Amino acid sequence: MKIVIDAMGGDNAPREIIKGALEALKIRKGFTLLFTGDEAVISKELSLYSYDKSRVEVKHASEIITNNEAPTTAVRAKRDSSLVVGLKALKEDEDAGAFISAGSTGAVLTGGIMYIGRISGVKRPALCPAVPNVHGGITLLCDAGANADCKPEYLAQFAIMATAYGKAAYRMDNPKVGLLNNGTEDHKGDIMHQEVFALLKETEGINFVGNVEGRDLMYGDSDIVVADGFSGNVALKSAEGCGKTVGAILKQEFSKAKMRYLIARKQIGKVKQILDYSRLGGAIFLGLKKTVVKAHGSSKANTITAAVLQAVDAVEGRTVERIIEMLPDSIQE
Amino acid sequence: MKIVIDAMGGDNAPREIIKGALEALKIRKGFTLLFTGDEAVISKELSLYSYDKSRVEVKHASEIITNNEAPTTAVRAKRDSSLVVGLKALKEDEDAGAFISAGSTGAVLTGGIMYIGRISGVKRPALCPAVPNVHGGITLLCDAGANADCKPEYLAQFAIMATAYGKAAYRMDNPKVGLLNNGTEDHKGDIMHQEVFALLKETEGINFVGNVEGRDLMYGDSDIVVADGFSGNVALKSAEGCGKTVGAILKQEFSKAKMRYLIARKQIGKVKQILDYSRLGGAIFLGLKKTVVKAHGSSKANTITAAVLQAVDAVEGRTVERIIEMLPDSIQE
Repeated sequence: MKIVIDAMGGDNAPREIIKGALEALKIRKGFTLLFTGDEAVISKELSLYSYDKSRVEVKHASEIITNNEAPTTAVRAKRDSSLVVGLKALKEDEDAGAFISAGSTGAVLTGGIMYIGRISGVKRPALCPAVPNVHGGITLLCDAGANADCKPEYLAQFAIMATAYGKAAYRMDNPKVGLLNNGTEDHKGDIMHQEVFALLKETEGINFVGNVEGRDLMYGDSDIVVADGFSGNVALKSAEGCGKTVGAILKQEFSKAKMRYLIARKQIGKVKQILDYSRLGGAIFLGLKKTVVKAHGSSKANTITAAVLQAVDAVEGRTVERIIEMLPDSIQE
Repeated sequence: MKIVIDAMGGDNAPREIIKGALEALKIRKGFTLLFTGDEAVISKELSLYSYDKSRVEVKHASEIITNNEAPTTAVRAKRDSSLVVGLKALKEDEDAGAFISAGSTGAVLTGGIMYIGRISGVKRPALCPAVPNVHGGITLLCDAGANADCKPEYLAQFAIMATAYGKAAYRMDNPKVGLLNNGTEDHKGDIMHQEVFALLKETEGINFVGNVEGRDLMYGDSDIVVADGFSGNVALKSAEGCGKTVGAILKQEFSKAKMRYLIARKQIGKVKQILDYSRLGGAIFLGLKKTVVKAHGSSKANTITAAVLQAVDAVEGRTVERIIEMLPDSIQE
């Protein structure tokens, strides 16, 4: 099985992308890498490391899509970009299981739908990152921002897709699904979320446990939090902002007390480690015919390593096939 | 000026409510307290403390509204509840400036609208808590959950009301107003928030700085974050969940290393202190003809003390009058 990687996407490309992906080869067997991007640049980077050359390919792409470009225009116009060449390789190469990019989120989403295509019956693909939680594990959040305007039936599909992914890649057994709402009582929410609540209660194949609040994303018991892409994005970033604030205060306080920091750093490091999203890889884009993972633009090597292993897990766990199996016949086209 | 206090509302009523309110008398001059609730119970509690008796009154109310009651039904039926008696005292007593309750949020909101009434021209009153931020100050969030279903014009009014309140109670000078959205670019958001963005750009009297993300609530530069009540609630609680998670991890890690905790506790305490919402009082309910403050149900004495001082600041700063002055003529009824 082959993992295709956009070697040119992200703030630290290509160096950290290539370094991180090669590291994944050492950790797991059973897959190969295909880098897309400027062949000369990639070859030069690859020459810095020793690795199993039988597990690495390069496919040349002369262009790069930046964050400053309008996604739809860019993925249409730049056919020879590392992103589009990568997505095409994923689509056309039977052995290719997943594509990873740390490039423009909009371009990855638009390009994924355009070149890989939605699974038949899926109304809206959705971003599904893993969020660290108080139990030391992860909570899946779906949708974290791909769809700002949602209809109730989209969220029912997000619940199904995230359940399939949780089982496939995180070996969750009958994962608990909560609906992100403005209170835990059954009647809570705006009109849309009240409709979603009723729909999720009737959706087969998911373990719906009712409404959850923002605090439950990190401090709750659900395995999966289903959200419209707008409030899912707000939840993710609000938690992130609090984490950053804590980090900044700790840094400021201990900068005035360095000896104390040395004594307590193991315990404080544990907080940083648990809150550190980067160890969790990227956000999978669920609902496409093949696996696409969007890594954070600021990803360093360790995040890319995690994203590669995450993509391997998603493919080996048969995420796409499970989604197809779980989608109710009624909503298949 | 008189601050009316629901002595029976909240998990720790009446003891912590009365204790906290009396404490505020020691800190500030220029106001008196009126407690509503069971006179015998309140008198017994009051007898535990020494305080300036010329600054404290009690008004008997035989009933209590609980969290388990439907708010609208409860505030209509229980006319002799500590909450309704308090709201009526606020309305009828010319000297009364504000009402504080740690009771049922729904009942405070419904009762506030029913007995105090909206300012002429205000479409929807909104909850506006102060959220601790990375700078060691506060960010006002409006609406934090009073209105799940919003229209763009409601949010324009939230921006105006929060600006008036920031100037009045927190002495903010031309406070920066951000719109909570799923990205910072101008075009971001669902259809509703795109309309809000356009409307805020044209709203006079506010210093609109554009879209902000969830992370900016605590880790940004806006003084005010305007939100629909649904995603505002999600933002507040998601940040809170991350804060609780950090607290739980620190507690767990340092419970295994107590000596290290003793050495680092000053620095760690600073994080807890900054994140501690309770020191900030309650959430003001903006848009009513007089000031109503909803304190958290779990409020202890220190939160009630803060809420009393916050209410005094809001009244002395002329929050209601400033809102009336700022509301554009066009939207006055």
